[in-house]
Amino acid sequence: MDPRLAALRDAIDAADAELVRILAKRLEISREIGQLKHELGQPLYVPSREAELIAGRRADAEHAGLPGDLIEDILRRTMRESYQRQKHQGFRRVNPDQRPIVVVGGKGALGQLFVKWFELSGYAVHVIDKDNQNELPTAVSDALLVLIAVPVAQTEDVIANLPELPSDCVLADVTSIKQKPLQAMLARHSGPVIGLHPMFGPSVPTLAKQTILVTPGRDHAASDWLIQQFAIWGVQVHSLTAEQHDKAMSMIQVMRHLSSFVYGYHLSKENPDLEQLVQLSSPIYRLELMMVGRLFAQSGELYADIIQSDQDKLSMVRRYLKRFDDVLKLLETEGREGFVREFEKVALWFGPYAEGFLRESINLLQHTSDSRS
Amino acid sequence: MDPRLAALRDAIDAADAELVRILAKRLEISREIGQLKHELGQPLYVPSREAELIAGRRADAEHAGLPGDLIEDILRRTMRESYQRQKHQGFRRVNPDQRPIVVVGGKGALGQLFVKWFELSGYAVHVIDKDNQNELPTAVSDALLVLIAVPVAQTEDVIANLPELPSDCVLADVTSIKQKPLQAMLARHSGPVIGLHPMFGPSVPTLAKQTILVTPGRDHAASDWLIQQFAIWGVQVHSLTAEQHDKAMSMIQVMRHLSSFVYGYHLSKENPDLEQLVQLSSPIYRLELMMVGRLFAQSGELYADIIQSDQDKLSMVRRYLKRFDDVLKLLETEGREGFVREFEKVALWFGPYAEGFLRESINLLQHTSDSRS
Repeated sequence: MDPRLAALRDAIDAADAELVRILAKRLEISREIGQLKHELGQPLYVPSREAELIAGRRADAEHAGLPGDLIEDILRRTMRESYQRQKHQGFRRVNPDQRPIVVVGGKGALGQLFVKWFELSGYAVHVIDKDNQNELPTAVSDALLVLIAVPVAQTEDVIANLPELPSDCVLADVTSIKQKPLQAMLARHSGPVIGLHPMFGPSVPTLAKQTILVTPGRDHAASDWLIQQFAIWGVQVHSLTAEQHDKAMSMIQVMRHLSSFVYGYHLSKENPDLEQLVQLSSPIYRLELMMVGRLFAQSGELYADIIQSDQDKLSMVRRYLKRFDDVLKLLETEGREGFVREFEKVALWFGPYAEGFLRESINLLQHTSDSRS
Repeated sequence: MDPRLAALRDAIDAADAELVRILAKRLEISREIGQLKHELGQPLYVPSREAELIAGRRADAEHAGLPGDLIEDILRRTMRESYQRQKHQGFRRVNPDQRPIVVVGGKGALGQLFVKWFELSGYAVHVIDKDNQNELPTAVSDALLVLIAVPVAQTEDVIANLPELPSDCVLADVTSIKQKPLQAMLARHSGPVIGLHPMFGPSVPTLAKQTILVTPGRDHAASDWLIQQFAIWGVQVHSLTAEQHDKAMSMIQVMRHLSSFVYGYHLSKENPDLEQLVQLSSPIYRLELMMVGRLFAQSGELYADIIQSDQDKLSMVRRYLKRFDDVLKLLETEGREGFVREFEKVALWFGPYAEGFLRESINLLQHTSDSRS
């Protein structure tokens, strides 16, 4: 090897060693900050503080002739690590009330996640699942919160069959649809009721920056401590009506799951050489395959329930299918011109979002290429 | 603010300042390596060397109590910066032959990209487009390479109408379908012929780690210099037959573009509040919206051409639609059980890829959450 090249590679090695040292130091300081915030009962993730810090670092970097995007990406990646480690320090408990939290379906994937985070925050959690339903009446008798985390198909029954709850107990569910569970909860319990839809799966390593959609039911003030607890975990909360929620979700959720399922089903029937398909895929097609394939590493029951949860949604899918057919007919009758005409109408509808999504996706696709080697 | 917190934040500021300093230093050393490799005529991106370096750094990091993934992600992000900067230093020119490269359609998005990269490598490039077609005969008369980069719908005509090329001139195209263009090129030119399909869009900031699919036509050896030039740019090459190529592409390309288009078309007809949709989207739905919306920031003509390029592909889409319909019927007749049964069959078909895709997507989705604040 050329000696100059060897020397420069030694210099890279030295720089990387320094890099490792500084990252380790930064994570240690973050750990201490997490510890202190834990003592002070402050939330770990404060969007405004993070935005401010990032902006400052971008400025420093650009001053040093470094692209702001580079330092921003690296800091965000490092912060992820800090947020994930915070788990090990636990979180401040917002509600001092010693009464237990009951998670019905607490052995399901999402149920387990909430059990874990409530325990990380020092709450006494009573897990109820198929194997110990007989404990339900005693468990809820002095419950602070009863959280329903059963499959969507069973949610309404489980709610309807709940024993009497303390009048000040908060009744909540985490189902991906909200109108029917909320109605069921309001009918069963006369106290505080709130609907929750966590916009994340059980696989998330941290709740920081995750979103929970909240559909108020009754006596919202009584659930304030719960919302504050989410904030301590770093969760962002969006409040909307159950109707708004279900309408928006049918638009993204059912469409996404069903069309991903059909795509996978279609591929398995066409039966191409999957390995070759993956090899030939550019980042964007690889991403497509990934988002379809990942579905099938998960529970078919879960997706069946989400898709079946609401007949209105299936009628919306029928309209989608009809439109797909219309587009094929358009291609056959008017060809290129007809397609381009409709394309431009849709582009108008997306407006500035189209450009925004393109920019965002370019960065994302670049990230997926980074990992090749 | 608590003085202890203030002190720790100062420590974070200091660590980040050091981080910026080291990243700047590393980029400078990379620049010198790039410069040297340019002089030595070595490719910038060598997969084996990168993999080796990453493995070593992961070990060092884990030795220092740092997760290997963290240092790997950060190094890959930093290397991206180095690869992008290499553009400014130019690339070694593999073929010393002084004759020009002619890019027909050189003012189109993809054409411009190749013009730029050939020029970065010191080749004389003659750009032919609508406005100067009269120059084509003179331009090709002593051409080293004639690259066809016109819209797919025009490719065959443009090739058929090419003037006589020098017998040793390489004739190549960059169309997203390969059988028909390759046949047209073999029919028109008796010399070296090669089909190329760049698996990237004009927006890529660097060609390092990008892929070009190669479908050999005639006298492959005569195109060796071109393949080597791609390697110098950091491009990875996959060779396959035009038939294999078109079959695989119809599976991913047309399906992806058409279903994304119909999804956007569907959304615009359902006309939900897009801003609210985006707000409510979890990373995975946001990704979905992004991949659909980005389409409409691009050229409708381009997508019309890709989708129309091959009737067999549309018949494949018809099969997809039929299956979509079958699935809806299945949901109506057999409900949950039927869905889950088919789901498990597809899961079997994906085999270990499902798990792999899920893991990969979790990291990717985490990356998209990182950027929130």
